[in-house]
Amino acid sequence: MKSIQERYPEPYTHCFGCGTHNQAGWHIQTYYVDGVYVGRHRVPPEYSGGWADSMYGGAIAALIDCHTAAAAADAKGRELGLTAADPLPRFVTATITVDYLAPTPAGVEVNLKARVTSIAGRKVHVSCELFPAGSATPTARGEVLMIQVREP
Amino acid sequence: MKSIQERYPEPYTHCFGCGTHNQAGWHIQTYYVDGVYVGRHRVPPEYSGGWADSMYGGAIAALIDCHTAAAAADAKGRELGLTAADPLPRFVTATITVDYLAPTPAGVEVNLKARVTSIAGRKVHVSCELFPAGSATPTARGEVLMIQVREP
Repeated sequence: MKSIQERYPEPYTHCFGCGTHNQAGWHIQTYYVDGVYVGRHRVPPEYSGGWADSMYGGAIAALIDCHTAAAAADAKGRELGLTAADPLPRFVTATITVDYLAPTPAGVEVNLKARVTSIAGRKVHVSCELFPAGSATPTARGEVLMIQVREP
Repeated sequence: MKSIQERYPEPYTHCFGCGTHNQAGWHIQTYYVDGVYVGRHRVPPEYSGGWADSMYGGAIAALIDCHTAAAAADAKGRELGLTAADPLPRFVTATITVDYLAPTPAGVEVNLKARVTSIAGRKVHVSCELFPAGSATPTARGEVLMIQVREP
């Protein structure tokens, strides 16, 4: 199954967080499974907060940012009746709020689960939780407003 | 003048965003100047959103995260009557909200300006704006609640 990021057309494939063509980047991948947007990602251990082997806040915000942008793109694509072969519209972040609920271990896999809560024209709201692999308790929660890029 | 991050004691100097001892990291530096916390930082161009030469949202959130953590630490240190020679208390992010007001160019310097808006025990609220170098118009704004780490 293709990830949502693999359906971004040029010139939208070079993002550090999720661009399939950014060689230095993280290559975050997001998939749609039964109404939920899921992803699994391992952030390299150097992106830690530096103690207690926890990720720093910025890395967690970055994961949630790219994951929810993908969720917005796919949800809008479904609303538009696009097929899996169609390139997706691309979204940028208008507002992101991240609540850090507990330390997230650095250098291990984390699971991302997001739901689209509303679509109104070019505005898509997405809620996201982040879990250390193997845990059912989220360590961070994000609420994001994504805006569809106007195509030139 | 020492940056605030240079006053973090061990084991708090290894953060990817601002740790003075994280060799792979960004080394964000924050200074107190007349009631305002200022910083100037250039994020490498690979941390772009991949088009329109703009930074991706995660990188902007990461800059604001580390900068406001430093502002909180210094403000708390001032409240406690610490001197510049004293190690600072360390803060972690409880909640961050970032509003993306306009695209932020990638690969150029940005200026960060933050103000501490309240200190209540271990909780410190910080507001922050991010400006492309040479511009007086912010391209992102953050509101952050930082929590002081309990020393072991």
